Amino acid sequence: MAEIRLAGRPPSPPRRHLLAVSDLGREDVERILGTAATLARSLDREVKKLPALRGRLVVNLFYESSTRTLSSFDLAAKRLSADTMSLRSSGSSVDKGESLKDTALTLAAYDPDVIVIRHPCIGAPQVVAGATAAHVVNAGDGKHQHPTQALLDLYTMREALGRLEGLHVAIVGDVLHSRVARSLVEALALVGARTTLVAPPTLLPRGIEALGCATTTDIREIAHADVVYVLRMQHERMLPGAAFVPSLREYTALWGITPDRVRAGQVVMHPGPMNRGVEIDPRVADSGAALVSEQVRAGLVVRMAVLYDLLTSGPVEIVRALEVA
Amino acid sequence: MAEIRLAGRPPSPPRRHLLAVSDLGREDVERILGTAATLARSLDREVKKLPALRGRLVVNLFYESSTRTLSSFDLAAKRLSADTMSLRSSGSSVDKGESLKDTALTLAAYDPDVIVIRHPCIGAPQVVAGATAAHVVNAGDGKHQHPTQALLDLYTMREALGRLEGLHVAIVGDVLHSRVARSLVEALALVGARTTLVAPPTLLPRGIEALGCATTTDIREIAHADVVYVLRMQHERMLPGAAFVPSLREYTALWGITPDRVRAGQVVMHPGPMNRGVEIDPRVADSGAALVSEQVRAGLVVRMAVLYDLLTSGPVEIVRALEVA
Amino acid sequence: MAEIRLAGRPPSPPRRHLLAVSDLGREDVERILGTAATLARSLDREVKKLPALRGRLVVNLFYESSTRTLSSFDLAAKRLSADTMSLRSSGSSVDKGESLKDTALTLAAYDPDVIVIRHPCIGAPQVVAGATAAHVVNAGDGKHQHPTQALLDLYTMREALGRLEGLHVAIVGDVLHSRVARSLVEALALVGARTTLVAPPTLLPRGIEALGCATTTDIREIAHADVVYVLRMQHERMLPGAAFVPSLREYTALWGITPDRVRAGQVVMHPGPMNRGVEIDPRVADSGAALVSEQVRAGLVVRMAVLYDLLTSGPVEIVRALEVA
Repeated sequence: MAEIRLAGRPPSPPRRHLLAVSDLGREDVERILGTAATLARSLDREVKKLPALRGRLVVNLFYESSTRTLSSFDLAAKRLSADTMSLRSSGSSVDKGESLKDTALTLAAYDPDVIVIRHPCIGAPQVVAGATAAHVVNAGDGKHQHPTQALLDLYTMREALGRLEGLHVAIVGDVLHSRVARSLVEALALVGARTTLVAPPTLLPRGIEALGCATTTDIREIAHADVVYVLRMQHERMLPGAAFVPSLREYTALWGITPDRVRAGQVVMHPGPMNRGVEIDPRVADSGAALVSEQVRAGLVVRMAVLYDLLTSGPVEIVRALEVA
Repeated sequence: MAEIRLAGRPPSPPRRHLLAVSDLGREDVERILGTAATLARSLDREVKKLPALRGRLVVNLFYESSTRTLSSFDLAAKRLSADTMSLRSSGSSVDKGESLKDTALTLAAYDPDVIVIRHPCIGAPQVVAGATAAHVVNAGDGKHQHPTQALLDLYTMREALGRLEGLHVAIVGDVLHSRVARSLVEALALVGARTTLVAPPTLLPRGIEALGCATTTDIREIAHADVVYVLRMQHERMLPGAAFVPSLREYTALWGITPDRVRAGQVVMHPGPMNRGVEIDPRVADSGAALVSEQVRAGLVVRMAVLYDLLTSGPVEIVRALEVA
Repeated sequence: MAEIRLAGRPPSPPRRHLLAVSDLGREDVERILGTAATLARSLDREVKKLPALRGRLVVNLFYESSTRTLSSFDLAAKRLSADTMSLRSSGSSVDKGESLKDTALTLAAYDPDVIVIRHPCIGAPQVVAGATAAHVVNAGDGKHQHPTQALLDLYTMREALGRLEGLHVAIVGDVLHSRVARSLVEALALVGARTTLVAPPTLLPRGIEALGCATTTDIREIAHADVVYVLRMQHERMLPGAAFVPSLREYTALWGITPDRVRAGQVVMHPGPMNRGVEIDPRVADSGAALVSEQVRAGLVVRMAVLYDLLTSGPVEIVRALEVA
C-alpha cells in the first residue's frame, strides 16, 4: 500500500450535494482527484470491485438520454459494490405527468444514499435536493452545469500534463448550448488555470467573461493553449427552423479542429459523443494528441471518487476499503 | 434481537402465488404484515441488505409502464440479495407478437423463483402461473387486482393508526377504473375493517357492493371515516372521445379532497402518482395528514415480505436471515 | 464432484472472440458443450450462482431488440457473478449519430472483459473487436451469423439424441433472412452432422450449398431427418411492399410444420419467438417432440460456458469454480 498517497488533511464536514462547480473549494477538488488517482491505480491492479459502498443505494434519475454519463455513474456505483436503480423518463410514471418533486418524494421513501439526476431544466437537481435526504449529484441540468464532467476533465489534464496550475485551455465551439463549457471554465479558474473560449459570435453567450475567461472568435488563438478542448455541436438543442449562422459547413471550415490547427505538444479533448467531420477532423480524433478515451476512463474513477467522497468521511477510509478488497 | 416479534404460528404449507387478495386468509395477511414490520425495523438499523434470497432469481415482466411498482419490486428483491431481471414490453420480443404463454415458457426455462407480472389484461397472471413452476405475483392486471398495493395500504394504516379491525375507510374517486380499489375493499373486509366508496355515479361500477362495502355519491360522507383513501383519476384508461360526466373541473369541485373536507385526526392516502389539483389538493398532499411517502416506503418492505413469504417456509427463518446479515 | 467429466485436454491458447462459427474448431465446440453440461448439472443441484467471473464486466451492446438473447447473456453473466451493463440503441447516444467505432472506443475505456454485440449490419462485431481489448461475442449481425445460437442448438440435440455425429437435420423455412440457419449449417458440418435446407425457392439463397448442405423445396423430405428445425418467418426483415411468393397462407399450407408432417421419433426445434399457426402448428409446438424450452435452457448454460471459456484458460478451472461456490 506504499504507493497510495493520501491528501492527509483531516476530514472536512461532509458535503451534502454536488450540484455545481461552485459547491467545491479548491481543496475539495484536490481531494476528489487524489481519491480518483488512488482508485485508478487499484483498478489497474485488477482489483475491479471495492466493497466501500456495499449496501448503499445509488439511484440514477435520467430525464435525458445518455449512454456515457448514465453508464459511467452506474458502473462507478457497482465498482464500489453499491446497489443501483436507474429510472429514465421514457416508460416511467414520470411520463404520467407526475411532478419532479413528487417523483423525488417517491424515491426518497426508498431511502437512497445518492440520487444522480440529469434533467433538461436548470435547477432540477436543487428541487430534488430539497425534497430528499439523499446526497444529490447533478449529472447535467439544461445548459447550466455538469460538474462531474469538469472534474473528469481536470483529472485527465493533470494525468496527461502533470499539473493544472498555470495551464492554458482553449475551449472551442458551441459554447452557447454547453453546460460542459460553463462548468469547466469555473473549475479551471478554481485550480489556477486559464481559459480562452473560441467560437463564432453567435455561439458565444454575452457576458460569459464574468466566469473568469477570455473570449475570441479567431481560431488561430488556440495556438497559445496547452489544451484544445473541442465542444460537441449540439444540433439537438437548436430550435428546429432556427437560422444557424454560420452554416455547419462554414463552421467546419472556420472553426473545425483539423490537423494543421493543432500544434505539436498540444493535447486535444472532447466530451463526446463526437461529430466526426463537423467540430473535429477524424485525423485529429484518432491521433495520439487526442485524450478522448482517457476522458471516458477518467469519468469512471472520478465518479467513483465523487460517490465515495459524498458517502464517507474522507480520504483516510479508502486505505481500509482497498485493504479489504 | 429481542425486539423482533414473530407470529409464532407453525409454518403453513407454502402458497404458490399471490394473484388476488382472495388468495389470502386473514392469518396470511397478519404474517406478511408482521414480516414486513420486522424488515422495516432491520432497514432502520442500517442493515440495508439481507442474504435471505441469495442466488434466487426474480423476473419482473411488465407490459405496462410503472416507475413505482417495478422499482419497488426490483429493489425489494435486491435488498434480499436476489438476482433480478426486468423485461418490459417495449423493446422486447413481446413486441414481435409472441404470445404471453410462449413468453412465460421462455422465462420458465431460466428457472426463475418468482415472476412478478403487470399486464393490461385481466387474468394474465393466471396464464403465467399455469405455464411455469415459478411463484407468480400479480403486480396489476387490468382493472382487476393489485394485491401487494392492498397489503402495503393495510400496513400503512396499521402503522399510522395502530389497528385495522374496526377501522372505517372512505375510498374516493375513480373506482370504475381502479384495481387498487377492488383489491383494497377485499383486503379491508378480510381484516375486519369497513369501507365506503365515494364517487360520482358514472365512476361507481354497478354491483360493487357485493365485495362487502357501502357506496355513496355524497362527498360529505367521508367525515365519518378514519382514513380518506384518494384514488388517482385515470385519464389514460378512459377511451379517447368518451364523454366524462362530470368534467374534470366539476369533479375537482365536487369530489376533490381539499383541506376543508379533511377532518382533524383523519389520515389521507393515495396510491400515486398524484394528479395534484385534480383529485387531491396540493395543500392536503403536503400536509401532515398525508401518508403518501409512508405508502411508498411500505411498498418496499411489504414486497420484500411477500417475496420472502413465497420463497421460505415461514416467519421463523427470518430471525436466521437477520442474524447472518 | 465425481460426476464432473472434463475434457482433460491441455488448455489451448485463449481465443479472443466468438464472431462466427468459423472461429471454432471441433475441439472448441466439444469443450464448450462439455463445460455447458457441467454447468447445467451444477444449476440442477440448486447451485445457482458461481463465483468464477466475480469482478469481471460483461457489456451487452444491442442495436436490435431481443428479449431472449439479451436476457440470456445477461443472466449467464450474472450466474457467473460478473457485473453486467446493457446498452440498447434506443435511448442512448448511439441515437445521437455516434459511430459504432466511437461507441466501442467509449466502452473500451471502461475496460470490459467481454462485449456482447447484436447489430443489424454484417461485420459490426469485427469493428468492435478491432477497437477494443475486450473479448467480443457476436449475438447476431444482420443475416450473417449467430454462433451462440448454433452452439445451444448443438447442445440441445446432443442432450436429446445422445450424439451429434451422423445426425441428419432438416432446417425448414425462411433460410434467406436467417443468420440462425447459416450458423447452424456450419456448426453441424463441423461436428459431422448432415443438413438439408427445406424452403420455397424464393427463400433459399443461391449458392448456400457451398456451406456443406443439401437443399430441397419438397417438404416431404423432412421425413428422413432426425431433427426438424423450424425457422421463424421473419416478417420484420422483409421490405414493406415487397411481393412475398408464396403468400403467408400458402406458406403455411405448403411448408408449415403440422402434426401429420412430423414422424414418430423426430424432435422439433425452433429458435423462437414462434409464429404459432404460421411456420409451426400449435399442436406441434406444444407436443412432447418440441424442444423449444430445452433450447432456451441450453441458451443459458451455453452462454455461461462461452463467457467462461473466453475468460479462463480452460475447463480445468471449472472444478475449482464449482468447489468454492
